[in-house]
Amino acid sequence: MLNTLAIVGVGLLGGSIALAARERKLAHRIIGISRHPETLQIAQQRGMIDVGSVEWNEELSEAQLAIVCTPVDTIAELSLKLLRQYPQLIVTDVGSTKETILEAISREPKLAERFIGGHPLAGSEKSGPEHAMADLFQDRLLFITPSATSTAAATELVTRFWQTLGSQTIAMEAKKHDAIMAMISHMPCLASFALAGAIPAEYLQYSGTGLRSMCRLAGGDATMWSAIVRENRMHLLESIGKLQDGLMDLKQAIMAGDDVALQRLLEAGRRTYHALGS
Amino acid sequence: MLNTLAIVGVGLLGGSIALAARERKLAHRIIGISRHPETLQIAQQRGMIDVGSVEWNEELSEAQLAIVCTPVDTIAELSLKLLRQYPQLIVTDVGSTKETILEAISREPKLAERFIGGHPLAGSEKSGPEHAMADLFQDRLLFITPSATSTAAATELVTRFWQTLGSQTIAMEAKKHDAIMAMISHMPCLASFALAGAIPAEYLQYSGTGLRSMCRLAGGDATMWSAIVRENRMHLLESIGKLQDGLMDLKQAIMAGDDVALQRLLEAGRRTYHALGS
Repeated sequence: MLNTLAIVGVGLLGGSIALAARERKLAHRIIGISRHPETLQIAQQRGMIDVGSVEWNEELSEAQLAIVCTPVDTIAELSLKLLRQYPQLIVTDVGSTKETILEAISREPKLAERFIGGHPLAGSEKSGPEHAMADLFQDRLLFITPSATSTAAATELVTRFWQTLGSQTIAMEAKKHDAIMAMISHMPCLASFALAGAIPAEYLQYSGTGLRSMCRLAGGDATMWSAIVRENRMHLLESIGKLQDGLMDLKQAIMAGDDVALQRLLEAGRRTYHALGS
Repeated sequence: MLNTLAIVGVGLLGGSIALAARERKLAHRIIGISRHPETLQIAQQRGMIDVGSVEWNEELSEAQLAIVCTPVDTIAELSLKLLRQYPQLIVTDVGSTKETILEAISREPKLAERFIGGHPLAGSEKSGPEHAMADLFQDRLLFITPSATSTAAATELVTRFWQTLGSQTIAMEAKKHDAIMAMISHMPCLASFALAGAIPAEYLQYSGTGLRSMCRLAGGDATMWSAIVRENRMHLLESIGKLQDGLMDLKQAIMAGDDVALQRLLEAGRRTYHALGS
């Protein structure tokens, strides 16, 4: 499909895209860009990339598609640079937030023609190319957030790329995407950090599978999460507020000994559990 | 080891004890007591029990050990009745809270000689004997909370029973047990209910594995959890308060744009995740 695919940032997501693209023969050649030589070394050892580089070079002039897989707060700037420097390149990303990225890139409508935001609902609390998996995107949702000026051809290329990787694509406005993500992804992750941080260390020896399940997301990269928090600040504060309201309602029902209210609150949670189809 | 073992309440835990005791040949005969004939039917079909009964009968006069696996708020009363009616019987339970149960039973010091509190750190968000598993207690912690008057022989019998089922037993004072459980089990479960209840239904179609992990415990039995909440009220309110403090700290760091504080809070959660050995 592609002659050359460029992955900028070869971590868990970038590495998994490379592995998946290889397996599905989506590109003749995959080039990896990373600031960390040791990352490129792992990526090359695992056969993810054909060539790795710590700087941008003429290899990128051959690429049709670049996927920016760096921390969210670096994506807009890197993407604009790529779009400016390589006029043939279609650029997409895998950032967990979309609104500030799209806003920044849309300030240059001509460059924004070749930019399509992307966000795979896939990941892991692990990071680094050593944990990359070829099937990470299989049967997962993938949000596509085009800019106001994105060309149909660019949108089509990025959409088909992800569909070939096994993802189910959904086009959505960036702001709506961020509001949804704050609620179903970013707030739950911060709640996991807060809950994990509240447990006294001396109690951990008695922990069961329940606590482990609630603390799993707190294994995520704190630097990555700080960046997501900054980018999705307003929606996130609102979502944390909803959780705080829920805890306050529970507490009041418990203090008042109000079994009917307690039961109603628990049943609301149970409905969500069942709707998730677990 | 035992001639007759009685399981009072043949749900997920009771059924799993029966299966495990069978597999390890811990009793020649296992009798199941339940108010629900359909539960006994499933238990008999799965070969968990030799005989099932909706009432207490002379079968119980043959039993050496009865394990009460009913909702926590019914355990003290049922156990006292069993101790009174069957003077040969050693009685234990699997309730998630211990303090109120031990308090109630200790009011009759003579009967309390044959009562040993127990709590396996095992379970599932599923319930009913159809989900029972013979290996549910394998390599799991099991708290033993004797009463002030429990005989050494009774404590020894219950302790060895669980060890033979594969559990690692820990003797502990009931009050301390409840404080620890509030923090590492009951609060995380209520947090899961609160978080799940806060998510708008129309967002659930976009959920990923992270949200699922945080909502898993909200699949638990709301009636069972209401009972646990009632029994462990004070410790639970304190533990919910700790989570509320953690969320407030996070929110303040986000509002203030204080990256250092945010990073510190996230790292505290990450330490717990790593200490859990996931």
